[in-house]
Amino acid sequence: MAANIAILGASGYTGAELVRLIATHPGMRIAALTADRKAGQSMAQVFPHLRHLDLPTLSTIEQVDFSGIDLAFVALPHGLSQALVKGLPRDLKVVDLGADFRLSPEAYETWYGQPHAAPELQPEAVYGLTEFYRDRIKGARLVAGTGCNAATVQFALRPLIEGKLIDLDDIVCDLKNGVSGAGRSLKENMLFAERSEDVAGYSQGGKHRHLGEFDQEFSALAGRDVRIIFTPHLVPVNRGILASVYVKGDAQAVHAALAARYADEPFCIVLPFGELPAMAHVQGSNFVHLGVTGDRVTGRALVVSTLDNLNKGSSGQAVQNANLMLGLPETEGLMLAPVFP
Amino acid sequence: MAANIAILGASGYTGAELVRLIATHPGMRIAALTADRKAGQSMAQVFPHLRHLDLPTLSTIEQVDFSGIDLAFVALPHGLSQALVKGLPRDLKVVDLGADFRLSPEAYETWYGQPHAAPELQPEAVYGLTEFYRDRIKGARLVAGTGCNAATVQFALRPLIEGKLIDLDDIVCDLKNGVSGAGRSLKENMLFAERSEDVAGYSQGGKHRHLGEFDQEFSALAGRDVRIIFTPHLVPVNRGILASVYVKGDAQAVHAALAARYADEPFCIVLPFGELPAMAHVQGSNFVHLGVTGDRVTGRALVVSTLDNLNKGSSGQAVQNANLMLGLPETEGLMLAPVFP
Amino acid sequence: MAANIAILGASGYTGAELVRLIATHPGMRIAALTADRKAGQSMAQVFPHLRHLDLPTLSTIEQVDFSGIDLAFVALPHGLSQALVKGLPRDLKVVDLGADFRLSPEAYETWYGQPHAAPELQPEAVYGLTEFYRDRIKGARLVAGTGCNAATVQFALRPLIEGKLIDLDDIVCDLKNGVSGAGRSLKENMLFAERSEDVAGYSQGGKHRHLGEFDQEFSALAGRDVRIIFTPHLVPVNRGILASVYVKGDAQAVHAALAARYADEPFCIVLPFGELPAMAHVQGSNFVHLGVTGDRVTGRALVVSTLDNLNKGSSGQAVQNANLMLGLPETEGLMLAPVFP
Amino acid sequence: MAANIAILGASGYTGAELVRLIATHPGMRIAALTADRKAGQSMAQVFPHLRHLDLPTLSTIEQVDFSGIDLAFVALPHGLSQALVKGLPRDLKVVDLGADFRLSPEAYETWYGQPHAAPELQPEAVYGLTEFYRDRIKGARLVAGTGCNAATVQFALRPLIEGKLIDLDDIVCDLKNGVSGAGRSLKENMLFAERSEDVAGYSQGGKHRHLGEFDQEFSALAGRDVRIIFTPHLVPVNRGILASVYVKGDAQAVHAALAARYADEPFCIVLPFGELPAMAHVQGSNFVHLGVTGDRVTGRALVVSTLDNLNKGSSGQAVQNANLMLGLPETEGLMLAPVFP
Repeated sequence: MAANIAILGASGYTGAELVRLIATHPGMRIAALTADRKAGQSMAQVFPHLRHLDLPTLSTIEQVDFSGIDLAFVALPHGLSQALVKGLPRDLKVVDLGADFRLSPEAYETWYGQPHAAPELQPEAVYGLTEFYRDRIKGARLVAGTGCNAATVQFALRPLIEGKLIDLDDIVCDLKNGVSGAGRSLKENMLFAERSEDVAGYSQGGKHRHLGEFDQEFSALAGRDVRIIFTPHLVPVNRGILASVYVKGDAQAVHAALAARYADEPFCIVLPFGELPAMAHVQGSNFVHLGVTGDRVTGRALVVSTLDNLNKGSSGQAVQNANLMLGLPETEGLMLAPVFP
Repeated sequence: MAANIAILGASGYTGAELVRLIATHPGMRIAALTADRKAGQSMAQVFPHLRHLDLPTLSTIEQVDFSGIDLAFVALPHGLSQALVKGLPRDLKVVDLGADFRLSPEAYETWYGQPHAAPELQPEAVYGLTEFYRDRIKGARLVAGTGCNAATVQFALRPLIEGKLIDLDDIVCDLKNGVSGAGRSLKENMLFAERSEDVAGYSQGGKHRHLGEFDQEFSALAGRDVRIIFTPHLVPVNRGILASVYVKGDAQAVHAALAARYADEPFCIVLPFGELPAMAHVQGSNFVHLGVTGDRVTGRALVVSTLDNLNKGSSGQAVQNANLMLGLPETEGLMLAPVFP
Repeated sequence: MAANIAILGASGYTGAELVRLIATHPGMRIAALTADRKAGQSMAQVFPHLRHLDLPTLSTIEQVDFSGIDLAFVALPHGLSQALVKGLPRDLKVVDLGADFRLSPEAYETWYGQPHAAPELQPEAVYGLTEFYRDRIKGARLVAGTGCNAATVQFALRPLIEGKLIDLDDIVCDLKNGVSGAGRSLKENMLFAERSEDVAGYSQGGKHRHLGEFDQEFSALAGRDVRIIFTPHLVPVNRGILASVYVKGDAQAVHAALAARYADEPFCIVLPFGELPAMAHVQGSNFVHLGVTGDRVTGRALVVSTLDNLNKGSSGQAVQNANLMLGLPETEGLMLAPVFP
Repeated sequence: MAANIAILGASGYTGAELVRLIATHPGMRIAALTADRKAGQSMAQVFPHLRHLDLPTLSTIEQVDFSGIDLAFVALPHGLSQALVKGLPRDLKVVDLGADFRLSPEAYETWYGQPHAAPELQPEAVYGLTEFYRDRIKGARLVAGTGCNAATVQFALRPLIEGKLIDLDDIVCDLKNGVSGAGRSLKENMLFAERSEDVAGYSQGGKHRHLGEFDQEFSALAGRDVRIIFTPHLVPVNRGILASVYVKGDAQAVHAALAARYADEPFCIVLPFGELPAMAHVQGSNFVHLGVTGDRVTGRALVVSTLDNLNKGSSGQAVQNANLMLGLPETEGLMLAPVFP
């Protein structure tokens, strides 16, 4: 029997992507959808591409009867999940797609500029990078989905840091990000006429909040402080993140480490040495494509990692984690092939 | 047990879309893939977005052992299917995605400028517009997939012509077409720099080959010659056709006829009167969205029909037909939700 | 000596386009720029692409000393120009780019839903379609720029209506519009992720406000009421309008009438019979490209007209009119070639 | 009196951009246009956006009477200019936009894989980065236009290398390139459906030919070998290159050096410290925008440089150089403002 799912915050792009994935997921059924400002509307009004589905009307969170719900996805802007999750039933499994439970309360305050409203929940929250926290996720009540950029770069770097294959003080990550990562909220610089035909960086110089995740994860892996150089750039595509990661190390060893680490991972594909992936080849899917090349300058390697920010970077990852939490096969509902072109 | 499928002409976009759909189709498995000029290559080399799949290597058609194949999709440029299909085993079910078996030999010669190479097969070929030829498709050996534009417009017009609801001498169809419909072949006007930021019509003035299908189908429905005005325009999107069909008739009656006709169709959705669909809401799916509005000029109606040219307009339609031919549920493998944004 | 120019409402796209054009216009210099909500900012902050220019700081309208200004362009949202223009000095020449002075007070109220605030100015306002109101514009104090869609379609139809070449009761205009026409204001459906990869109509069914201009102009030309069928569609390009106009008439005569009418017009180019223009070939310029083809259905013609909505459809037209009003050569500053690709 | 200009190789995008720029250039007139494979066609057939211009018919190079020509732009694929330039009259000024005269014969052979056909011309060829070779260009007969990527990165790095402000062994350049840089030739990966919605690197790992220019120029400046890490990525925009250059050095000093160096340059604009430029703000123009920020990791700086590859990166640069060679004001015809949006 399918698990009953609530999606809290269903009127954003990650909410819509959750619905899309669950629509053909044999082990889940959507029992409640909330969107406070759009309560009372049908999902078809908010997202007409889902109008073929028979879905519950959008409600407020207060209107949800959680007694029959097995798992809730929380897809709210950062800062709003904390108090909300605190108020949910203790026996409800929760996958939070936002930033609220990714960091320690201290790091959260540093990067998000406000004290955490539910620090007591932090200890039980498991970081949601499935391929690296799988065992803990299986038993978790609360999983904190990773940042989409954070996921992309960690797939490239974690095995290299763990394997002591690269210089930890010289890691430069240049990201190219699709526009949907900014969500559906109204900002002038997200208008079509502003983004189309443009490429521009943002949060440059070490100011992007996903650095909190990198600091936490990479330092823990390395056993020392690691501070990467990290610059995201908006590119005029809807979905996708492509990270070009410049490292100092032996390129062949770097490739071998990634190939070995992901050999048995269903969603992580490492290309042959010297081949590098393209963003268009993962869109709409839960796959990560990784590639490595050397350089004419010896001792240098380029690692490229690409995934779909709404899917593997957010909602697909969330479903993957939910599968584990619900005792379902990890890949269930997630083997949809990328859509190209 | 899953049916064994061959895809002949797998190196084009419709071939890739077939593989994408079959990848998560429980009733089909891919047993052979051909692409004469790319024989010997893996599908991952030709379409890296499919590299997570375990697929047969591309071969020539001659190399295929058809004895174990249940059904072949033929996705070749027009003109090449005729001789090929003629040479296939008589007991092999065939869904042709090209233009070769859509028209009578005479009409074929008129629109495609060459005599038909297999006129003897024409009588058994069933026109593949599933919603209107379902019963004949179930028993067919050879189904001729429709043109993608032809499908889009027929969904809008067939019930209106059949219901005698519109003036048959004043039908204007203005189409906006995504670029993938032109396929993967090399043409200067299909370069990114030429198509991006452009909108331009083509085959204007009654020269587009899909008019052969309209003439044949609409005249048969009406019991008299029908000649529509039809102009397609290339727009800078990858997938999608949106047809704006201007008719003379009572808009409410037009809407009622479409709503009634498609009430039980799983893939055809008619919006409430006055609401009109958008291309972005069907991309990646087998759904057709239809809408109708009136005009301040009485006696006029606008019918808008939109679908994904690679999916419902081609490969999705083909799988839908193959499901029927193989005795599978018609919707199997095709309920993938549209991908938005 | 260059004329002193004020741009009132310089923070929108048409304001920026005015600045771009005047930047290399030998007969004009920008003396004042206003933007009420952005007063105090530099133009470089609002539009960084103009940062190489030495421009006045944005101010409020109240802060402008109009005594030294020769001509003001008013680029405000509709409804705001009326009271403003009323308050400007009587000897200041004004080109309004908005909708406020295009229509009679009655028609204005019908289409814009509110009474006109300065009906006494209406009689002196000249409709700004330069090629057809040139003589009156030369002597005008107040010129009302046309709607961008309205201009595009009028270039196609005016000579045909005047020449009695087409059936006035069967004119279907299907437009494809670039996104910049919607301006820089924040609307969910103008986000990149919503517009990219989409085509969708709007204001269908005879509801678009530019119909007020068509009714007024075409009825006056014909000496009887004319009501065209008109549907605009948003396409994912920044600039450009391409109108496909379906008429009943002799295609060769239609072409001959357009060719004759525009033979001496510097900005209107009629292609050889049977060739139709593309949106990409006018972007960034003040040119209109027009083409005509017949159809296999005799008595039908397709006229296609395309221009850049921000340039010839708005700011370029405004400069062209200002040239006339200031006694400058009509083409001065406007011969910039289209930018392709 | 305007100088007579020939454009040899006018059927590519840089040829069209030259025509666009010269169309409003008061000191130049186009006297000859060649395109061997399209000889006999009008420029309007090859580039309809230029159809308003009165231009010579395309001819073969052999058909050109060079006696009345003052200067020739050569816009041919690399490898073809060498022999051609050799055969041109000795008193004809030449600006080559291709790669043939940028490098020493040895370096040319290394990077382009074939011996140079006119090594005797190499000594007189001046490298065309105007802002750094201005004095030599004024007296040159033959100027070799730089690579478009090469120009973008050199604007960022030359003053820093010259000022000994950065670690020469740790320079990482990540470029995002518009698609028009690949030209109009037919390649599968340049089709709209392949490039739209994609970001992908190319020539990674130190294989891009513009590295020959970097090696030559940076090593000469530094007085030692310099080898930068350089990765270009194709992004779905038509025009523009944005280089993110990661260096080790004091960010404030880096900014100060750039600001000082370009203070009097008409086309190079350095943003205030901490502000970084966007590609959309230079398109269609000859301007370069530069910005610098520091990082939370001390001793690191990010320099971003952006320009229009067809304009400042190629044809605009060529006109700027031609202005100098012809004794015209350097900025003549080049002050066109960027086109946004």
